[in-house]
Amino acid sequence: MAANATHQFLKILSSKALNPTLSLPLTQIRKFPISQNPRNYTSVLQAAVNDNVGSSSGGRSGGLSSPPPPPVNEISERIDINPPKGTRDFPPDEMRLRTWLFQNFREVSRLFGFEEIDFPVLESEALYIRKAGEEIRDQLYSFEDRGGRRVALRPELTPSLARLVLQKGKSSPLPFKWFAIGQCWRYERMTRGRRREHYQWNMDIIGVPGVAAEAELISSMVTFFKRLGITSADVGFKVSSRKVLQEVLHSYSIPENLFGKVCITIDKLEKIPIDEIKKDLKLVGMTEEAIEELLQVLSVNSLSELEEILGSSGDAIAELKQLFSLADKFGYSDWIQFDASVVRGLAYYTGIVFEGFDRKGKLRAICGGGRYDRLMSTFGGDDVPACGFGFGDAVIMELLKEKGLVPELTPAVENIVCALDQELQGAASLVATKLREKGQSVDLVLENKPMKWVFKRAEKINAGRLILIGKNEWEKGLVRIKNLATFEQCDIELDKLE
Amino acid sequence: MAANATHQFLKILSSKALNPTLSLPLTQIRKFPISQNPRNYTSVLQAAVNDNVGSSSGGRSGGLSSPPPPPVNEISERIDINPPKGTRDFPPDEMRLRTWLFQNFREVSRLFGFEEIDFPVLESEALYIRKAGEEIRDQLYSFEDRGGRRVALRPELTPSLARLVLQKGKSSPLPFKWFAIGQCWRYERMTRGRRREHYQWNMDIIGVPGVAAEAELISSMVTFFKRLGITSADVGFKVSSRKVLQEVLHSYSIPENLFGKVCITIDKLEKIPIDEIKKDLKLVGMTEEAIEELLQVLSVNSLSELEEILGSSGDAIAELKQLFSLADKFGYSDWIQFDASVVRGLAYYTGIVFEGFDRKGKLRAICGGGRYDRLMSTFGGDDVPACGFGFGDAVIMELLKEKGLVPELTPAVENIVCALDQELQGAASLVATKLREKGQSVDLVLENKPMKWVFKRAEKINAGRLILIGKNEWEKGLVRIKNLATFEQCDIELDKLE
Repeated sequence: MAANATHQFLKILSSKALNPTLSLPLTQIRKFPISQNPRNYTSVLQAAVNDNVGSSSGGRSGGLSSPPPPPVNEISERIDINPPKGTRDFPPDEMRLRTWLFQNFREVSRLFGFEEIDFPVLESEALYIRKAGEEIRDQLYSFEDRGGRRVALRPELTPSLARLVLQKGKSSPLPFKWFAIGQCWRYERMTRGRRREHYQWNMDIIGVPGVAAEAELISSMVTFFKRLGITSADVGFKVSSRKVLQEVLHSYSIPENLFGKVCITIDKLEKIPIDEIKKDLKLVGMTEEAIEELLQVLSVNSLSELEEILGSSGDAIAELKQLFSLADKFGYSDWIQFDASVVRGLAYYTGIVFEGFDRKGKLRAICGGGRYDRLMSTFGGDDVPACGFGFGDAVIMELLKEKGLVPELTPAVENIVCALDQELQGAASLVATKLREKGQSVDLVLENKPMKWVFKRAEKINAGRLILIGKNEWEKGLVRIKNLATFEQCDIELDKLE
Repeated sequence: MAANATHQFLKILSSKALNPTLSLPLTQIRKFPISQNPRNYTSVLQAAVNDNVGSSSGGRSGGLSSPPPPPVNEISERIDINPPKGTRDFPPDEMRLRTWLFQNFREVSRLFGFEEIDFPVLESEALYIRKAGEEIRDQLYSFEDRGGRRVALRPELTPSLARLVLQKGKSSPLPFKWFAIGQCWRYERMTRGRRREHYQWNMDIIGVPGVAAEAELISSMVTFFKRLGITSADVGFKVSSRKVLQEVLHSYSIPENLFGKVCITIDKLEKIPIDEIKKDLKLVGMTEEAIEELLQVLSVNSLSELEEILGSSGDAIAELKQLFSLADKFGYSDWIQFDASVVRGLAYYTGIVFEGFDRKGKLRAICGGGRYDRLMSTFGGDDVPACGFGFGDAVIMELLKEKGLVPELTPAVENIVCALDQELQGAASLVATKLREKGQSVDLVLENKPMKWVFKRAEKINAGRLILIGKNEWEKGLVRIKNLATFEQCDIELDKLE
């Protein structure tokens, strides 16, 4: 029921995402935001158009959804021309945006001295099986392969990273500063526009126990936002520490091994009714008094107030203070705020947790992460201090759209080369080769087309100049060059073509 | 049995791949070469080491291969730290090579005016079900998703491309010149070192009926090879046309719809015994006489000889002649040769087919492609002339290794910034931020470490200079800069730091 209500809510939100007067707060907190809305980058409207195309061509519920494998016959019936439900194609315009976004991820990672890594998109299911009741488990895109192995399309990158650390950690000196940009999958019940895959930028620091690491990670996300034109008036980071909760639970003698579960429950605070939360907390053995104090602590949003409640002796307060002090030196104090309600939805966090949110409260978490010092031992290895964040490609694109910050990226090619005569196609090839050898991009016209067509093509691909190979000129060793911005033209010797 | 023999053969080859005296010809022809050997780019030996690591940690046949889903308990037993069988991790050194290779794919595509696209790695299984008995069908990594849909990890990119063309073809003017770099999957029985995933660079031209398109595609692959230092003494292209076969079959009244099947059978010529080939050809209704003539034609490797057999009136001869003439103008005649035995292993080719091979005959096909003018109608759409190629990441890396052309790519960061005192960590953060704002990469030391450690770290990450924040200097507004190439050092004002 609660889940249904959320879906309804998302549906409303999704149908109005472009309406700037809408300001419903949706602070559904999870590590890996998948857009509740567009199936592509360019526009929500476009997504709606695609949906129509889908249904006019027979829809997705057609031939593809029947369970038994199709017969081994030549296909002649119309196939669904849409990508599978919940996934995206990237035609050139979408791809340019994706490339632009990824280049920004990469450039920020480079500025911070991080090295890129990657893992298989298909992993062993065992990597993701944790008992804390995370949403991620229910949405695992898992199956049995032909060899009887349980495998899963990765829903997140951190477990693969932990696996790689266990492989490399003993032979290479720490710290590792690694980043990855990878596609992640979640099998969700589809409401309109929700996706089953998204790309995620991760940065992780392995081997550094102190909060200087978290401060560095938040700094890199701030750097990313600034590059894109997003300010601290648009986006903030809520920061807390799981040690705050731990100290409260400890004082009520809640066993250590229930900690992850309690965190997952609390992470649902704004998604499901408070009574259900309380019921779940009772189930793990908390008294009503303990639950009330816990909820009290979670509503705190100043460090001094927290200090009054917890006292100043614990790690939680000390680390948070140190982080805020470093943020000040880094120069991003205006981006971060303490908020005890942030716990994040994954079981493995152990210390500082943070999440980026839009200050208008329209979108879900933009990015998030934290410290996970004990993940390696759950895989049977030795623990290594570690922290990192995940930053999806969906919510950030929505935010950029809202702020009018999506760049207009047009294709651009330096030259369009065209033979005026079928017989000069070889000559045109030669001209194209010469230009390409000089590092210039060339769209070579491969057919005998009228000049009107050529100009249209030149315009479409945004060519800088048109190079025409005509019989008379070619016999003199000349080609004609037309600057497509100024429309000036001249004949030039082939060897002098730059 | 034949398959077993091939496996044995591959096993022998794989265990000696680094031995330069071995020159067994292995011309297993397929569109998407998956390496028979290394699981990573750097070395075959490394792969062997990894294999040992795998078995010492319990091996892959351990906990992960049991069919039922694991229990929902916290994992505490040791997990397999290797990627799933047949897949790769990309730690930083492997990733640098992959990035370098992909950058070359992208740069060549840009020079030719192609735009990048992508599709979901998970597609509807129906896209890949063709009746021709292709190897690719038996190796399809398919399964039923939770919604009862038959889906598959893409084994190749062309069917997704065709799907996208059907979506976009009517609203945008042709031609499309598109490229993609995507991961493809094949579920193969594993022999040592064979992989189940590889990346593939595709370039496709949609909407151009003439062989100028094929000439352009081959030119782009030649350009790629040249950029990497590979010459026409190392690599060549075998070129033929499926129309050659078609004309032979036509003269024996073999029905059109058996054409794809015949091609797939012929593609296995060097993989399975000739008697099996003949048996298969008889099954589709060819007489012994026709089979003998067909095999005769397939052994032809000069165009003039082919013309003698087929006569000069057909399309096959005319198109091949035109292609060789264009190749001459492009300047890559020395790279290509006619070879009637090339048919490629996918059912959808209709005209020119080509494949890149190493002239030493040690490796399988490096790349390959051709014209597929009738793929769209098998999906229920209108046909559009089209051609393209696939170029895997595996065989090319083996070739580069053999030729000593794998670049040595080291990490490089411009600055390493280090506070000499824990209390100056904030100051170091400020210095790092200032440098990053100027576009400089900075590895910020996040812990209080002895100078010996810092120098080791600087060396490992190949830092250009070391910037030290000491108490006395900082109080005067200075930082100490040490050039790590010359070991010169000086103190400089923070504001003057460039």
